[in-house]
Amino acid sequence: FSMSHVSPMVHAPFISEALAEARAGLAEGGIPIGCVLVRNNQVIARGHNRRIQRGSVILHAEMDCLESAGRQTAAFYKECILYTTLSPCAMCSGAIRLYGIPRVVIGENKTFHGDETLLKTHNVHIDILDSKECRELLDNYIKEHHSIWNEDIGRDQQ
Amino acid sequence: FSMSHVSPMVHAPFISEALAEARAGLAEGGIPIGCVLVRNNQVIARGHNRRIQRGSVILHAEMDCLESAGRQTAAFYKECILYTTLSPCAMCSGAIRLYGIPRVVIGENKTFHGDETLLKTHNVHIDILDSKECRELLDNYIKEHHSIWNEDIGRDQQ
Ligand SMILES: [Ca+2]
Ligand SMILES: [Ca+2]
Ligand SMILES: [Zn+2]
Ligand SMILES: [Zn+2]
Repeated sequence: FSMSHVSPMVHAPFISEALAEARAGLAEGGIPIGCVLVRNNQVIARGHNRRIQRGSVILHAEMDCLESAGRQTAAFYKECILYTTLSPCAMCSGAIRLYGIPRVVIGENKTFHGDETLLKTHNVHIDILDSKECRELLDNYIKEHHSIWNEDIGRDQQ
Repeated sequence: FSMSHVSPMVHAPFISEALAEARAGLAEGGIPIGCVLVRNNQVIARGHNRRIQRGSVILHAEMDCLESAGRQTAAFYKECILYTTLSPCAMCSGAIRLYGIPRVVIGENKTFHGDETLLKTHNVHIDILDSKECRELLDNYIKEHHSIWNEDIGRDQQ
């Protein structure tokens, strides 16, 4: 399993799947952030933020996706790539570190900039796609839902 | 809200509640790690590891407890103390950082040493109680369930 020769082109279908998850979340009335876990070039699990839908404080998109992937060994996670529409927060970055996922592809990090530096320090390979679709979807949501958004990222209400 | 004058004695009843959660988990056939969230000197939420019981990879004791506490503002979390029988892993430490919980009281950190240094770097106040009860409960479990334990902490099976 080598990750040094993955071209940006191969990311497109998978970040599209993560974006589809984000849109599914929005259609449910939720925060539009989505994620997929890829192994052997196949999507093996999907997830999206479920704060509103389930009143959950732990089901960020990445956590929902990892939970959906089920119980796995460290060897399994080492062969996975996590695609997420948004830069992972401290909690989700911690989960990525706990399970030793070696690579994370991020749709955008403009609306929120997570723990990318910490992930890199722990040898997680990070790609930032700077996707306008990912950014606009979340940015439009945040403009309309400041309070929910601040809650989701643990920020003081302004 | 000041945390600089809390004596070690006040921790005893709360770590006992966390330990009771760990024992409840064991009685269900689960990994014996427990947690409570305390605010205004009262337990407001409880949790224990649910990997076995629910096939969950995200419901570590701390996560289960935070989920049980429900949706809260940053201002709310700032008044909380998290009591956990075991040193928090990368994921749980990330959740503590995300929500800005200012103080974590840890039963023991000998069976597993988590992200304490990172938490301190982010100005989370840490107390280690070095509880023999917490340690022995988990240590006995690990001796009998190496494979499940390695899975829970994202470690290669030996
Ligand atoms: Ca999310
Ligand atoms: Ca746990
Ligand atoms: Zn997150
Ligand atoms: Zn944990």
